[in-house]
Amino acid sequence: MVSQVPSAADTLGAVRVIGTGLLGTSIGLALSGHGVRVLLRDPSPTALAVARDLGAGEIDDGRGAARLTVVAAPPDVTAGVVVAALDGDPDTTVTDVASVKSGVLQAVAAAGADLSRYVGGHPMAGRERSGPVAARGDLFIGRPWVICPSEKSEPARLDAVRLLVRVVGAEAVTMAAADHDAAVALVSHLPQVAASLVAARLRDAGDEAVALAGQGLRDVTRIAASDPMLWAQILGANAAPVATALERMRDELDEVIGALRALEAEAGTGGAEAAGGARGARAALAGAIARGNHGRDRIPGKHGGRPARYAQVTVLIPDRPGQLARLFADIDAAGINIEEIALEHAPGRAVGLVDVAVLPAVEEALGRALAAAGWQVVA
Amino acid sequence: MVSQVPSAADTLGAVRVIGTGLLGTSIGLALSGHGVRVLLRDPSPTALAVARDLGAGEIDDGRGAARLTVVAAPPDVTAGVVVAALDGDPDTTVTDVASVKSGVLQAVAAAGADLSRYVGGHPMAGRERSGPVAARGDLFIGRPWVICPSEKSEPARLDAVRLLVRVVGAEAVTMAAADHDAAVALVSHLPQVAASLVAARLRDAGDEAVALAGQGLRDVTRIAASDPMLWAQILGANAAPVATALERMRDELDEVIGALRALEAEAGTGGAEAAGGARGARAALAGAIARGNHGRDRIPGKHGGRPARYAQVTVLIPDRPGQLARLFADIDAAGINIEEIALEHAPGRAVGLVDVAVLPAVEEALGRALAAAGWQVVA
Repeated sequence: MVSQVPSAADTLGAVRVIGTGLLGTSIGLALSGHGVRVLLRDPSPTALAVARDLGAGEIDDGRGAARLTVVAAPPDVTAGVVVAALDGDPDTTVTDVASVKSGVLQAVAAAGADLSRYVGGHPMAGRERSGPVAARGDLFIGRPWVICPSEKSEPARLDAVRLLVRVVGAEAVTMAAADHDAAVALVSHLPQVAASLVAARLRDAGDEAVALAGQGLRDVTRIAASDPMLWAQILGANAAPVATALERMRDELDEVIGALRALEAEAGTGGAEAAGGARGARAALAGAIARGNHGRDRIPGKHGGRPARYAQVTVLIPDRPGQLARLFADIDAAGINIEEIALEHAPGRAVGLVDVAVLPAVEEALGRALAAAGWQVVA
Repeated sequence: MVSQVPSAADTLGAVRVIGTGLLGTSIGLALSGHGVRVLLRDPSPTALAVARDLGAGEIDDGRGAARLTVVAAPPDVTAGVVVAALDGDPDTTVTDVASVKSGVLQAVAAAGADLSRYVGGHPMAGRERSGPVAARGDLFIGRPWVICPSEKSEPARLDAVRLLVRVVGAEAVTMAAADHDAAVALVSHLPQVAASLVAARLRDAGDEAVALAGQGLRDVTRIAASDPMLWAQILGANAAPVATALERMRDELDEVIGALRALEAEAGTGGAEAAGGARGARAALAGAIARGNHGRDRIPGKHGGRPARYAQVTVLIPDRPGQLARLFADIDAAGINIEEIALEHAPGRAVGLVDVAVLPAVEEALGRALAAAGWQVVA
């Protein structure tokens, strides 16, 4: 007789996934890949059939029991689906994947549903594309997955959700719903609004102006390509924390605008400082940039470590297949680890610039190695 | 007898560079590398000696003539140095490298200097480090260099500055000073202020909040690490266009804040739409994100071509030397050209995710090739 240790899949039991869009189907694929039985539901028969055909699980006929139910519905219907799931199966633990947590918790509580079996969740993973066709079983590997138990959540229910997170390869981070919402207001929703507002100004710019766009503008506005309907739901669901963050940003923005208008007035008087008008204006501008320095320094470096400043080496490469492989082979041969990479392209030329970020201690060695290998290190 | 075609260096003649910081020294290095005689000046004897020792040119003893003078002084003293250069040498053409152009032109005109010999310039190149030690002769290769002649600039003077730009390898873009300043207000100064303001909010965030930072926040705030004193000068010198752009952004920001507060009030009344209060709020939020989509679409793609949307393939790699080289060798072997790359790092794990952007037509082929080569394509 051999005693058997139950696997994570055995412990998890059958999992019901309600909503077979990008996230629900990806969860189904990840769980199925680890031998977990997955029961799929979706109001769209097409989305449901696609998810099944992709291997995300079997279509839920309503007769199987599920120890865990994952609600992966759109944000604006999540709370209602969670309540129905809690009411419809008196034993199942219910979690969800909506990106704002307090509103769902309040709505579930207000509906009188059994909060002891509900544990909110937010996998911080996504793709630019949506729907089950874009789903990937490995979508969550290495990503944070915030878990927000309520005060009434039973410990065993929390453990079940933690196990789900572990099985799909994500990193569990446990926070209160309000703390989560305040955090994502600052690290996700505020940058989204700012990026969209900066990009929106480019509608006024002429072709020759946007032709001067550099890497800074591209970086700041990359997420401005996000989906308007999805973001209207996300921002609306986190209205108060996002509004508070935006109002604080507006206060500092007003200070910058005031300083600029004072300097404009000063210049209009022939450069003579208007009676106190522009006094402090330059300090206000420098202060706004300096506060940004301090905030930027708070973002953790790779692997969750402390913030790191990398040294950057820029290499000019012909824009054709094989050059990047050759470049990275040469960097490898020098025994140097790359921390970050960015590709830039010069206007009007079929060449590219590759910015290679490395630890400052190896910057010189990298420059020497690349020069020795015949690369043009440009800046 | 062999007739000789004069080289660009011969045509350019001796060039005086006033200011041996990053840009001036880099210009000196680039010109010297092409056989141009460079005469260096700087109020700092140390900076001057370093620039000379690096090979940027010879120290100007005041006895040599220069057909072209490049003023590479800090922005807030540029106009005065340009005037002195025009007055001090009645034959030389004078250009400068300040990143805002109208103010310099107006100040030079107000001083009564000879505008026929002045042509403003703005090389759109830089490094995170400053000073002559950071200078590189290849700093300008493939970068835009805006040239802003005044109505009084003589054509031959403009030609001399164009030749300078060509010799150092940059791409000349000719614009009126006011157009340049309005353009950089939108594509450079506005994103700088927005990035700094978003980053500044992170000073309020707890450690567990900033630990949730993803690639979006990192992208939006990368340039928030910029130098406060330099940016106070740049923003102050372009006060009116930047203030106008920021005020338009503030108007849209106020609309977003108003929509969020209306939705908050609606939620406070139990979800019933307040009498007209939140009506249109969700459309306002979606509209702000959609306007960002449209603006983002205006940014040209690589090589100055029309905007391109790339397909993205994400690969999980062990974080140690050699893996990137192996990855790009495999992509090369598949005959696929990489358009953009980004490295991400998973929290708490010694692995990295590489986002490889390719033309949509080859996305599937890339996924197949990588899977065949044993790579874990995750999303």
